[in-house]
Amino acid sequence: MTTLPPPSDRTRVRRLTDRAAYDQATIHAILDAGVVAHVGIVDGTTPIVIPMAYARVDDAIVLHGSAKSRLVMQLGAGAEACVTVTHLDGFVMARSAFHHSVNYRSAVVYGRGEAVLDDAAKYAALEAYFEKVHPGRWRDVRPPSAGELKATGVVRIPIAEASAKVRTGGPKDDAEDMALPVWAGVVPLVTTRGEPVRHVPDGD
Amino acid sequence: MTTLPPPSDRTRVRRLTDRAAYDQATIHAILDAGVVAHVGIVDGTTPIVIPMAYARVDDAIVLHGSAKSRLVMQLGAGAEACVTVTHLDGFVMARSAFHHSVNYRSAVVYGRGEAVLDDAAKYAALEAYFEKVHPGRWRDVRPPSAGELKATGVVRIPIAEASAKVRTGGPKDDAEDMALPVWAGVVPLVTTRGEPVRHVPDGD
Repeated sequence: MTTLPPPSDRTRVRRLTDRAAYDQATIHAILDAGVVAHVGIVDGTTPIVIPMAYARVDDAIVLHGSAKSRLVMQLGAGAEACVTVTHLDGFVMARSAFHHSVNYRSAVVYGRGEAVLDDAAKYAALEAYFEKVHPGRWRDVRPPSAGELKATGVVRIPIAEASAKVRTGGPKDDAEDMALPVWAGVVPLVTTRGEPVRHVPDGD
Repeated sequence: MTTLPPPSDRTRVRRLTDRAAYDQATIHAILDAGVVAHVGIVDGTTPIVIPMAYARVDDAIVLHGSAKSRLVMQLGAGAEACVTVTHLDGFVMARSAFHHSVNYRSAVVYGRGEAVLDDAAKYAALEAYFEKVHPGRWRDVRPPSAGELKATGVVRIPIAEASAKVRTGGPKDDAEDMALPVWAGVVPLVTTRGEPVRHVPDGD
């Protein structure tokens, strides 16, 4: 099992530490299962959290957006970021209100943004994102023109300081509640792709 | 249409402004459709983004967690927060790479945390969350004991400074790409509840 460096002060999970994981395989799997990350930066003293499409390329998260967007510009200039990806897998229904919970997988990555300026690296980042959306599609569509590529800002956050937190399984009720006449268990949550809706020109 | 105060410097959407909304109905609807928010705070100079279960009670977002969790403690002490809720509704597949997009609804709320200490208000916050998970369940389960309620930290963030961003509809391709032999349209993403899995004592 490949491990990242030992957890830092900010990645060490402090509560419910049995849910914590720091190994690369767990963190990569959580990142690879998602499409939108919540990216936090600090603007003055204010936290800003914005959803962004992302992909993983080797040991970095790559984000893209308009080259003129505030977030892309600040990350490209080296802003400190926290990138969080969460999958909500189910509602854990206990016999007591207190022991209700959710099953989830989340990964938190801390790092400074780095602008990706090289055309080949920008292409690779965009292709990695397309592979998640629809494998093979990158080769089917009209590729970005020089101007479009310039208008697309790509930034990377190294996956060096990261942690994961995972909860699975059923409720953990207190022994004295087990006989209560309350349905207990897990209601899974599943995200699926629906029937594609073809775009008809002028019918949009 | 009830409106919130005019957008502030930090809530005014700067790019793709035709996707922006500031009215209360849009923002409440996005918040009410979600269960987990990404909550950003600043720790020193570091942004921290953590997923948290939430609900809306009137004009506030209420979050709960362990009273001892760092986030709950800092929010309860008045930390500045950014609470973001995102629904990813579909992949927008264009004929060119550049015009690919996603359909989504997101709401961003800025505000300082406020500790909710009154027992009745804590109950109301927890009940609001339970109503989202499973309407009526709050009345069926064993309610929190005094000790459990004390161990549960509840904080509120007023929904006073907020904005929404929404994209719907098909791809917006360039006119000269419309005849390309590329499938274009929208692949919807839908989150549904799966078959509940009953918890069997000792079978967990």
